[in-house]
Amino acid sequence: MEKIKVGMLGIGNIGRGTYQALYMNQKKIADTTGLDIEIVKILNRHPEKDRGIDIPKEKYTKDVDDILNDPEISIVVELIGGIEPATTYMARALENGKSVVTANKAAIAANGKMLAELAQKHHVLLRFEAAVAGGIPILTSLTTALLSNEFSSVHGILNGTTNYILTQMEENGKNYADVLREAQAKGFAEADPTADVEGIDAANKLSILISLIFGLGVGPKQIPTQGITQIGSEDIAFARDFGYRIKLLASAREENGEVAASVEPSLIPESHPLANVRNEFNAVFITGNAVDNLMFYGRGAGPLPTGSAVMGDVIGVARKWEKDSAYDIVPQLRYDADLRFIGEGSNKYYVRMTAEDIPGVMGKITTILGAHGISIETAIQRPAKNSGSEDGVSRAPLVPLIFIFANVDKTIVSDALDDLVENKCVRSVETVMRVAD
Amino acid sequence: MEKIKVGMLGIGNIGRGTYQALYMNQKKIADTTGLDIEIVKILNRHPEKDRGIDIPKEKYTKDVDDILNDPEISIVVELIGGIEPATTYMARALENGKSVVTANKAAIAANGKMLAELAQKHHVLLRFEAAVAGGIPILTSLTTALLSNEFSSVHGILNGTTNYILTQMEENGKNYADVLREAQAKGFAEADPTADVEGIDAANKLSILISLIFGLGVGPKQIPTQGITQIGSEDIAFARDFGYRIKLLASAREENGEVAASVEPSLIPESHPLANVRNEFNAVFITGNAVDNLMFYGRGAGPLPTGSAVMGDVIGVARKWEKDSAYDIVPQLRYDADLRFIGEGSNKYYVRMTAEDIPGVMGKITTILGAHGISIETAIQRPAKNSGSEDGVSRAPLVPLIFIFANVDKTIVSDALDDLVENKCVRSVETVMRVAD
Repeated sequence: MEKIKVGMLGIGNIGRGTYQALYMNQKKIADTTGLDIEIVKILNRHPEKDRGIDIPKEKYTKDVDDILNDPEISIVVELIGGIEPATTYMARALENGKSVVTANKAAIAANGKMLAELAQKHHVLLRFEAAVAGGIPILTSLTTALLSNEFSSVHGILNGTTNYILTQMEENGKNYADVLREAQAKGFAEADPTADVEGIDAANKLSILISLIFGLGVGPKQIPTQGITQIGSEDIAFARDFGYRIKLLASAREENGEVAASVEPSLIPESHPLANVRNEFNAVFITGNAVDNLMFYGRGAGPLPTGSAVMGDVIGVARKWEKDSAYDIVPQLRYDADLRFIGEGSNKYYVRMTAEDIPGVMGKITTILGAHGISIETAIQRPAKNSGSEDGVSRAPLVPLIFIFANVDKTIVSDALDDLVENKCVRSVETVMRVAD
Repeated sequence: MEKIKVGMLGIGNIGRGTYQALYMNQKKIADTTGLDIEIVKILNRHPEKDRGIDIPKEKYTKDVDDILNDPEISIVVELIGGIEPATTYMARALENGKSVVTANKAAIAANGKMLAELAQKHHVLLRFEAAVAGGIPILTSLTTALLSNEFSSVHGILNGTTNYILTQMEENGKNYADVLREAQAKGFAEADPTADVEGIDAANKLSILISLIFGLGVGPKQIPTQGITQIGSEDIAFARDFGYRIKLLASAREENGEVAASVEPSLIPESHPLANVRNEFNAVFITGNAVDNLMFYGRGAGPLPTGSAVMGDVIGVARKWEKDSAYDIVPQLRYDADLRFIGEGSNKYYVRMTAEDIPGVMGKITTILGAHGISIETAIQRPAKNSGSEDGVSRAPLVPLIFIFANVDKTIVSDALDDLVENKCVRSVETVMRVAD
């Protein structure tokens, strides 16, 4: 049986999960693939630290060159995270003729093109299934079983933290701040939750999916991105009244040579499979011209699910390696399509605003919206809840107004909403969310 | 660019879908894989028949040997369906050194072991992604990205016809017979729906999944199988009251070296992702020791989705072929696990019966159930709806009784229910369904 020697950079949560996913299933892997895979060296800057896992001390090294320059190691698994020094290490591994497997979405979204080109140049492989949606085998499926499809769209719930928060807000009527605190206490959210709750993590993953699905290079910073911090319990209740659930949706779609993409809280019809993806689970919904609608659902994070994806890539690379066919003709990342990126594109939008409850206010608002070319599909005015005198000055009570706009560009929506506030038709705009079909 | 010549047996619905899936995406396939795939010959017994697709007449042959003996053809795609002559044709193709791709669940469930051994012997490949859940890439994922997992269970909605019928019964309050007629008119159900509604089709697919996931040979006829014909609107309503939806579930699970499996209508908690799989869609839910819960959702039938899966296999085989590494070390089918098949195993069960509404009837029933060792989790007696005098003889009115039994073997349930009817405690047993966790 061929021995495949793997070097691993990093032994944090995902490193431990990868180590476990290998060693608890080593017999099955050997039985079904004929491969004897060993993680022989692990970069660990703090070998004295207890990692809560039984790893022979002699596998640890503090020197990355011990791994990158070891001629016996054929696969380097990068699990440090962050753009640097991870990118530099991966580049050096590829240049040294080693295949690279990584779970690093930020590094692949930022430097995937350079790394993919290096891999091709050195006839080795670069794999990153774990970088998008954790344990869900979406990248493998797109580049194997689904190759006989052109895809028109992808919609993903790609961040477990925000989906957990939104599910808890919806199902238990809690508000955003309380659920976030709870999620932090449970370890589902980081102390600094910015990358999750502002949609940055999801935008990195969407950028990778866009290059795979459409063959287009769109950096995460080019993708219009909005987080979930502005969503109120009122929005969740209104969405429910309209037959929708709210999810942080990462979407991209192609039409007539143009690709539109965004990450933003979106209303999803409650009968749609994505609407029922609850708590920390992730899902990716794609539509191909042969396979039609397809959804993958599973754990998008966590040591073992992510480790499962990392080891799936390691086995895939090792199987090609053993066959002396390491150079893969299928590029996972493509940037050569004849398509144009148009930002967010046009969508339906849900808007909640607060206005003073004075006669004719609705008419004034709809006139201004109409002047901006916005068609209103639904308009709801709820009875006032407060007296409007919270600052002691007597005035008309405040009422929430909810609109759903027909398909329109987001920039037009923003201009029109600014106009409403400037003209004092509206006290404030509380929430703007996309409405998905 | 390497030219891959494919011969196709059969040009029915799936044949047409496969042809279309290739030719509408031929440029993308070539661009991303470097493969120029052509379907060069098609077995068509009735070339005069209009197939509703533009295929050059010279590709047709009435003689299967034209394909099986053509040295230029490296891949044979079998889309005739049925066990014979499909099995014989596939065996001959493998013996002639051609890889085989098929969508034929019945032939693979019946003769997969023999065909897999032939493929290994002749160093060619046998692939059948399309045989289970149509366009959903479950077999590819299990044999690639998910290799670093031992799976403890699989639960599938593997038949679109029955799922369509159950969804329509549930959402529109229609009865079984009416929905079946509707489905037949729409082409979702065959004129003879037996294989679908009795669970035979799902059992074939489950048999294939069991060999892949557990490495155990369990023929479809060994799998305890029950169809959906006995389900009444009352059951759907009661299930809903309890917080469940009814699906025809194909399940297998391993515990302590024993594998239990069944195909039967089952109550699924409404928050479970499988509960929200509607109409003709299929889904496969699996649990692995690293990846945890994972669900694949998509179209389990239809020409193009099935054609997508067939072409995915053809491309996969062609990529290996081109690399001169056609013999695949990963057997998709395994029959060598040290596990024991125990039939249905023990489950919770939902039982609806009809009894005469006389004092003490519930006590008599629960005593007999208790004597059989059945623990009752829930028992509900609804008010009588009729007078019990439909045959003119005056007697106590009939009432529906609904029970959920705690985990118990199905044989014990059957014995106990027979006992109840023999002892005239119960007029009739209407429905028995499994309750899934």
